[in-house]
Amino acid sequence: MDAKEFREFGKAAVDYVADYLENIRENDVLPSVDPGYLLQQLPKQMPEAPEAWREILTDIDRVIRPGITHWQSPNMHAYYPTCVSYPSIVGEILSSGFGIVGFSWICSPACTELEVVVMDWLAKFLKLPSHFLHESEGPGGGVIQGSASEAVLVAVLAAREQAVRRERECHPEQSESEIRGKLIAYSSDQSNSCIEKAGVLAAMPIKLLPAGDDLVLRGAALKEAIERDVAAGLIPVICVATLGTTGTCAYDDIESLSSICEQHQVWLHVDAAYAGGAFALDECAELRRGLDRVDSLNFNLHKFMLVNFDCSAMWLRDANKVIDSFNVDRIYLKHKHEGQTQIPDFRHWQIPLGRRFRALKVWITFRTLGAEGLRAHMRKHIDLAIQFENLVKADERFEVVAPRALGLVCFRAKGDNEVTSQLLQRLMERKKIYMVKAEHRGQLFLRFVVCGMDPKPSDIQFAWTEIETQLTSLCAEQLVNARKAGELSELTHHLSGLHLTNETLQR
Amino acid sequence: MDAKEFREFGKAAVDYVADYLENIRENDVLPSVDPGYLLQQLPKQMPEAPEAWREILTDIDRVIRPGITHWQSPNMHAYYPTCVSYPSIVGEILSSGFGIVGFSWICSPACTELEVVVMDWLAKFLKLPSHFLHESEGPGGGVIQGSASEAVLVAVLAAREQAVRRERECHPEQSESEIRGKLIAYSSDQSNSCIEKAGVLAAMPIKLLPAGDDLVLRGAALKEAIERDVAAGLIPVICVATLGTTGTCAYDDIESLSSICEQHQVWLHVDAAYAGGAFALDECAELRRGLDRVDSLNFNLHKFMLVNFDCSAMWLRDANKVIDSFNVDRIYLKHKHEGQTQIPDFRHWQIPLGRRFRALKVWITFRTLGAEGLRAHMRKHIDLAIQFENLVKADERFEVVAPRALGLVCFRAKGDNEVTSQLLQRLMERKKIYMVKAEHRGQLFLRFVVCGMDPKPSDIQFAWTEIETQLTSLCAEQLVNARKAGELSELTHHLSGLHLTNETLQR
Repeated sequence: MDAKEFREFGKAAVDYVADYLENIRENDVLPSVDPGYLLQQLPKQMPEAPEAWREILTDIDRVIRPGITHWQSPNMHAYYPTCVSYPSIVGEILSSGFGIVGFSWICSPACTELEVVVMDWLAKFLKLPSHFLHESEGPGGGVIQGSASEAVLVAVLAAREQAVRRERECHPEQSESEIRGKLIAYSSDQSNSCIEKAGVLAAMPIKLLPAGDDLVLRGAALKEAIERDVAAGLIPVICVATLGTTGTCAYDDIESLSSICEQHQVWLHVDAAYAGGAFALDECAELRRGLDRVDSLNFNLHKFMLVNFDCSAMWLRDANKVIDSFNVDRIYLKHKHEGQTQIPDFRHWQIPLGRRFRALKVWITFRTLGAEGLRAHMRKHIDLAIQFENLVKADERFEVVAPRALGLVCFRAKGDNEVTSQLLQRLMERKKIYMVKAEHRGQLFLRFVVCGMDPKPSDIQFAWTEIETQLTSLCAEQLVNARKAGELSELTHHLSGLHLTNETLQR
Repeated sequence: MDAKEFREFGKAAVDYVADYLENIRENDVLPSVDPGYLLQQLPKQMPEAPEAWREILTDIDRVIRPGITHWQSPNMHAYYPTCVSYPSIVGEILSSGFGIVGFSWICSPACTELEVVVMDWLAKFLKLPSHFLHESEGPGGGVIQGSASEAVLVAVLAAREQAVRRERECHPEQSESEIRGKLIAYSSDQSNSCIEKAGVLAAMPIKLLPAGDDLVLRGAALKEAIERDVAAGLIPVICVATLGTTGTCAYDDIESLSSICEQHQVWLHVDAAYAGGAFALDECAELRRGLDRVDSLNFNLHKFMLVNFDCSAMWLRDANKVIDSFNVDRIYLKHKHEGQTQIPDFRHWQIPLGRRFRALKVWITFRTLGAEGLRAHMRKHIDLAIQFENLVKADERFEVVAPRALGLVCFRAKGDNEVTSQLLQRLMERKKIYMVKAEHRGQLFLRFVVCGMDPKPSDIQFAWTEIETQLTSLCAEQLVNARKAGELSELTHHLSGLHLTNETLQR
């Protein structure tokens, strides 16, 4: 393929993407395919001869698109948002055109330096403590990781190595493996699976401490665990707190956790993958409480700031603690300016050696939207969640199970879990909207998250109508079946918890 | 930014990329900027209000492009190639437009299934043993990792967990931390830095065994190390062999290593990041020897197969060993079809939870080039390296220090390291071509790698002329300086190793 053909194919792809995103509401959010659908349609071998791009683009529409779950659809309400934006997509075009691998400054000075710039921009926009800025004196700064999982793993591994060094200095009589065998870390039982996974990968147990009834982890629980473990001869290493848990978007109490961590020289990392964007909003200023005392934090730009996945911002109070832990250098990686300047060699701040030019999409997105555009986007998500919450509250068949937090509303059909479970199954079969379930203390609930690039109030109304009419029809069917089976009395009892009557069911 | 503006901006970006790549020879391969060049030019804060895309694109040309090291330039000869291609860039456009996160099948069936398809296509193209195919019976298969570093880390961590489980079964009297303290891994002292880093991250020492004089690691060295370590009570876990070391593209002896690994139940991973592509070429069939006996291997598609970084193919003989080691699940990640089918949930095959739709760029690239196009691209790189090697050999001032391997020629100016070192410094200052140095047993040499999307014989001639004329002028200057300082006799002695005479220097 020559440049001329690329201009055609590339522009056709831009139009394809624009058409796709403009008309995304026309698709059911979930695809109607069964496992293996694509395997059956594609050849078993790579073609020997080149194929024409028009044919390939046709196939993308014919076989790929039907197997896409439409994350950019406003009818996506599962997990947390992964929002792309037009400027961010252009950032990906340019970054893939330059095709650089920015593992050190010399590998493309613009790649490293633009990352320094946008990470400082973002830290200021989020009103983070100044010691996280590259431009401040001191060893702090921000870096773009591929995902929250990687950011958490970097913190866990660096904390582990720091603890081992500290212990070896204090207790030279102990072997390294004795020390490693005593390391212990902490998080909440509400934290994301990637935190438990980080513990597995780091070969360091991460105890999942019980969050309170409000699903918040507090210093008291950490204190108790640390004191018990220290008494048993263990060495506490790191606590990974969460601002915006995956289940209910609960906020751990960073203030009280940091007090305990400081007392015990325990690294405090904050996983703010979802909620981090809200640091920028004055009305969410409470969320920032205690951040001046944490060692590191991460925040996903695709969740709230319209930068394409992958892009996970991470800040370190003292980046040297990571660099010291990870640095393994070779002669072919050395360059003239190394270590002479304030410019970081980000390869030492991360797991892999190679790194894409991710800062470009961040820069283009931030400039295209401006700070006001980013704040407006987040506020829109929040307002739409309030709209949904009010709809739930106004329908006596449903209940909200946790306070709405940012763009997430956790709710369920009143009564047995079975009703909520069947409702979700029905919604998944209809594929009009996509939510996932969660559970707390035996109670099953649904997570309604505002997602998509450009959701509108009418989309929320669409989702709500889908949910409540499906509950109505579900219950009506059950009533009919029960009548047939002569089990009316039992069902009436079952439905009473839903405040349903035959009358409501006729609606 | 609305869809209309995106169509304009996106198409302008496509044209920008096409112009950039078509005219890439006009740039010096290395940028003429000093550390901090960009920090000084950009504002300290994100703009409050949106900015126009034309302004942003102008800035990209004005401030970003001057700080780019041109990896796609045919005058790039450093590290190993990172080749983009036009179809692969289009793959990135489409993948960023869909904006999905494919951590499980339901998150976009096409994402998971297309990865199964292209990994099998690639395995067949590379003539890998059939147990690495998804379509074969059994637990083997391929997965796309972000980078070779991640692939190696996955292998190291999975091997570590498997070894711990096995030991705990055999020796229930030992504690887990006792076992972990005895784990030991192996690689060659020629292996990439990411392998040593994987050991650091995994908290498991990786011994870098001495390669032979030909820089090849063989079974005998591994056998000796393992036997010594086992006698000392250690537990050998994994050997990471390399096909195509970073320094000289040496090939470890997989056959003899696998015999030793099998005897000791040691996981054998092959890092074929660069050389892996050549498995596809009949004339390189020797490279595949022993691959039927390895547990896992990785190969970077950006190095030889024109797929944009990031895309590192990894195959596992038994994927369950990774899944068992890494699986930490949550209710919100569960879906209906899970575990019911042959379709993998790739989140359990990798470090992070999230994953981009990378298979799309692979598929589009493979179809656009066809198997014949991919083979032709690799053969072109090899032929150009042969051209360069012949030029080196024909000039008596230079010597080739290791056999040319694929697209890499290792060479030096004869005589003291100082000449080669100064030559490189001079070439770096002139910025016309970019190479990096390496060292073996005190001998400094330069690595000339054929890189870039579309290198031609004239580019090789350009590089050679630059190198040899710079040596000529370097020596001429030294001669002049020496004459001035009256140190002629000393210099003549110094230059004698270069077979230089005053006469040659006048050329």
